[in-house]
Amino acid sequence: MKDNATIKKMIEELKTLKTEDMYLNDFFHTWKESDDEIKAVFDVAEILRAMRENNISTKVFDSGLGISVFRDNSTRTRFSFTSACNMLGLAIQDLDEGKSQIAHGETVRETANMISFMADVIGIRDDMYIGKGHTYMKTVADAVQEGYDEGILEQRPTIVNLQCDIDHPTQSMADMLHVINHFGGVENLKGKKVAMTWAYSPSYGKPLSVPQGIIGLFTRFGMDVVLAHPEGYNVMPEIEEIAKENAKKGGGSYKRVKTMEEAFKDADIVYPKSWAPFAVMEERTKIVEHNDEKALHALEQSCLASNAKYKNWTCTEDLMKTTKDGEALYMHCLPADITGVSCKEGEVEEAVFDKYLVPLYKEASYKPYIIAAMMFLAKFQNPSAKLEELLAEAKKRIK
Amino acid sequence: MKDNATIKKMIEELKTLKTEDMYLNDFFHTWKESDDEIKAVFDVAEILRAMRENNISTKVFDSGLGISVFRDNSTRTRFSFTSACNMLGLAIQDLDEGKSQIAHGETVRETANMISFMADVIGIRDDMYIGKGHTYMKTVADAVQEGYDEGILEQRPTIVNLQCDIDHPTQSMADMLHVINHFGGVENLKGKKVAMTWAYSPSYGKPLSVPQGIIGLFTRFGMDVVLAHPEGYNVMPEIEEIAKENAKKGGGSYKRVKTMEEAFKDADIVYPKSWAPFAVMEERTKIVEHNDEKALHALEQSCLASNAKYKNWTCTEDLMKTTKDGEALYMHCLPADITGVSCKEGEVEEAVFDKYLVPLYKEASYKPYIIAAMMFLAKFQNPSAKLEELLAEAKKRIK
Amino acid sequence: MKDNATIKKMIEELKTLKTEDMYLNDFFHTWKESDDEIKAVFDVAEILRAMRENNISTKVFDSGLGISVFRDNSTRTRFSFTSACNMLGLAIQDLDEGKSQIAHGETVRETANMISFMADVIGIRDDMYIGKGHTYMKTVADAVQEGYDEGILEQRPTIVNLQCDIDHPTQSMADMLHVINHFGGVENLKGKKVAMTWAYSPSYGKPLSVPQGIIGLFTRFGMDVVLAHPEGYNVMPEIEEIAKENAKKGGGSYKRVKTMEEAFKDADIVYPKSWAPFAVMEERTKIVEHNDEKALHALEQSCLASNAKYKNWTCTEDLMKTTKDGEALYMHCLPADITGVSCKEGEVEEAVFDKYLVPLYKEASYKPYIIAAMMFLAKFQNPSAKLEELLAEAKKRIK
Repeated sequence: MKDNATIKKMIEELKTLKTEDMYLNDFFHTWKESDDEIKAVFDVAEILRAMRENNISTKVFDSGLGISVFRDNSTRTRFSFTSACNMLGLAIQDLDEGKSQIAHGETVRETANMISFMADVIGIRDDMYIGKGHTYMKTVADAVQEGYDEGILEQRPTIVNLQCDIDHPTQSMADMLHVINHFGGVENLKGKKVAMTWAYSPSYGKPLSVPQGIIGLFTRFGMDVVLAHPEGYNVMPEIEEIAKENAKKGGGSYKRVKTMEEAFKDADIVYPKSWAPFAVMEERTKIVEHNDEKALHALEQSCLASNAKYKNWTCTEDLMKTTKDGEALYMHCLPADITGVSCKEGEVEEAVFDKYLVPLYKEASYKPYIIAAMMFLAKFQNPSAKLEELLAEAKKRIK
Repeated sequence: MKDNATIKKMIEELKTLKTEDMYLNDFFHTWKESDDEIKAVFDVAEILRAMRENNISTKVFDSGLGISVFRDNSTRTRFSFTSACNMLGLAIQDLDEGKSQIAHGETVRETANMISFMADVIGIRDDMYIGKGHTYMKTVADAVQEGYDEGILEQRPTIVNLQCDIDHPTQSMADMLHVINHFGGVENLKGKKVAMTWAYSPSYGKPLSVPQGIIGLFTRFGMDVVLAHPEGYNVMPEIEEIAKENAKKGGGSYKRVKTMEEAFKDADIVYPKSWAPFAVMEERTKIVEHNDEKALHALEQSCLASNAKYKNWTCTEDLMKTTKDGEALYMHCLPADITGVSCKEGEVEEAVFDKYLVPLYKEASYKPYIIAAMMFLAKFQNPSAKLEELLAEAKKRIK
Repeated sequence: MKDNATIKKMIEELKTLKTEDMYLNDFFHTWKESDDEIKAVFDVAEILRAMRENNISTKVFDSGLGISVFRDNSTRTRFSFTSACNMLGLAIQDLDEGKSQIAHGETVRETANMISFMADVIGIRDDMYIGKGHTYMKTVADAVQEGYDEGILEQRPTIVNLQCDIDHPTQSMADMLHVINHFGGVENLKGKKVAMTWAYSPSYGKPLSVPQGIIGLFTRFGMDVVLAHPEGYNVMPEIEEIAKENAKKGGGSYKRVKTMEEAFKDADIVYPKSWAPFAVMEERTKIVEHNDEKALHALEQSCLASNAKYKNWTCTEDLMKTTKDGEALYMHCLPADITGVSCKEGEVEEAVFDKYLVPLYKEASYKPYIIAAMMFLAKFQNPSAKLEELLAEAKKRIK
């Protein structure tokens, strides 16, 4: 647990960062944020966590709403968003499209305004269809900006990307904060090898946003990031370009390799996880737009058959032994497909998963604080002053 | 944005109104409220909105629950109710009848008490069946009154009608407040012509509560209110009687005409919207009570066939040109059936709808404040004193 | 309504009780709690109720979450839990397993941590399968304890049993507090006769936790508790053992009789309610584990047929006349199967049920306060000091 002096020091560090552009802005993709902005999210997340651990209230909203729009299932992201809202003082209202009139032809623009009369934040998960998720979020953002400019909304709600078709910034940043803490600081990351690899799963169509989010963010920290997947399981080429540029600027490297073995060799961090090929995801989107159930079924079958050829892409104890000192940090966004536990054959052997249970849960535990930090930086022009105020006031969260 | 001096002046005006009977009471139908009471709702809504725009907390409940009971789909009313509760400090708990044991034979009276042990407000939408919605709300109101009298409940929750079979007061009052602001004050409304007209929609069984709410409220402001619909698409005769009486008292007029053209001619305000004939709605209720699916399907088909005869009842640009200076205020409760957008042929042409997008969203934006005002007036015996207190305290909503 | 002096006196009484072991602990079964602990729950419940009735805020959490996990339908327990959380300052987040990824193979242990990053309380209802509900709750409790110990969670959430396969402590304690108040104090209960009896219902598989909860708790107060049911409708033998021991220690008695008539004879309290035989419940669990729908249907049919032999096990006016002065307190956890109202033939005659409507609702009204008291005692090491603080501060709940 960090004491008040440590928290004060962390706030001092935050003061050195340029975060003005985050104020009243949205958080879509990590690569749209400057290094200072990324660091500020980590700093605020850690400060908020430390304050909570010290039973200091971080409630900066007396009232207000956080709207959640989940266009895909979610437990951990839903709870993380709720937790983040709650710790800042916002109540949650779900836009449950099953219940609402959206299905009856409401346009996104109209709905965006109708849910935002008292919304401070809108968290959106829309990761199912390539070319759709981010576009939807941008449309919502534009609509609420216009609503605010026209005097319809009394505030401009901030959009937080809780996973789109391109990036999953709350995941990748929680993951990265875990890595930073695990290795004792960002200064220890230079030269570390990260293996982001595909792994077999009996399910189909897992989003690309996790591997893309990881290579798009981890390459900024001077690490050697390796992406491995079977032939054809490519991610979006634009994101690989971003990874390359990041690596160049950050003094690390990015490359793609063809086997899990090569990726794992001497790796400091491994992140084996299933995803669907970009080309398949694009095809699926087109099929869904044409409402062609037969074609969708055929695609699913062919994709599962293709996956089945790569059942040997699985994270075994033997493979883990080939990593740096046999002790690479195993990561996953959870839930994982664990061989013999959640499926017959999956992404990881039970023995590996079990060994890393505590670090895996810790990894996940950063997400609510990352989300809260994104909101905080969007809502306060002078975040360090506001944090100092909270610390000085030291109102107890539990009486 | 209104400054504090303006808000103080608004509170002074509120002081001149007699609102005692609203205290600890319910809000069912606008025509059950006195002119002072109606005005008080508008005033409190505007004051609450001004305070929010000035970042002044309006949280009058330290804790407490607002219960929502939606017996029909809803996005905007649901979010408006949530927002209203949140801005006053209440948390929302849905009574989701799908999840609950109501389907297994619990009586309304029992449920009303079971959900009210800590309920400050109950918002109900029950608009599907003629003779049922208002009756249900009254039963809930009687049950919680009895529960309070018997010492079962520690407070008597207020019922807010979020749409019944007869009236939709939170809609009509949000609409009216929009009209008042649009025309620069209630004093400018005398002699204005309002056209509440039926319009074609490809859907079936839309509630009567919107047209009834509009003619029941708008006739109180000295305006010339015209109701137009195809033969047989009558609203409830009792409500027309109320409209006539209101018009007489208020110095305006109410009449029914047979064409959209006649209604739109020189109108200052047009409100073209689909609804099902009263006679059909009554028949449907009987059929549903007897659980006769075949008859229900037959009724739906005949109703859709009947609607289809009136596809020319649609709000076109040409028709809009015939209104006062070609610039009548177009209104709708949303979502509208827009020709070529949400349906092939509908209530309104896209060009008309798009021209009025901003005023339409503004119209909708009053609803949360109207609901909050209804609650506020039911919960505080001296509402102006309480508002002055909030203004003086000036606690920031966002720190 | 109790005045502040009375509340102070109640707090003084609370001070005499030993409640240290409740701090940071869970509430699973009443028989695991000492007499002091049981009394403390009643005392705190009454104090919290009195404070609320006096418009004194009991909000001890500035922010925080209460997680609800309902693995069976519920209206009243859901609303009671929400109310309890709200009155202490916690927001509710449902773990809706339909929406979440649990169905896709997440383990209980993982989920428990993922929902608990900011959870102060987890309320669980899992009453459907013998040997499962309590086990599930224990697993969650162990998982969050480990999560806390490992630094994953910044607090150790308290588990509150909202009904398991074995006990329904929030129900039995609300029932008992109702009895205490009805008879004017715990000192008046010695020698009172309680008839917990089976009653006919046209439904199948009602949980055993209510009758077990009642005999497990009511036997602690020196009363003569009688359990009556048709042959074969036994409850869990372990719980009967607990009832016997309790009776011995408490100076009362426990026995099983074979007819409703014998049980009702001169009873001061009657609790006629349907349940499924323990043996059937055990069989059902096995069948469900093997996913054998045919066997499940057969079991249901045989169980309904068996029930139908005992339609005469129903609480009639005539039977009520045989109770003490014909005026026994009729109790039910609600909703009841009322003959001619919610079913053709059921647990109770309409005339009996209607006569006891007000006491039945009062009985239910204690539940939110009981739950709040359980949370309060788990969250504050010195509950009486905290209550005194709230009373001294006297912050108004409604401004």
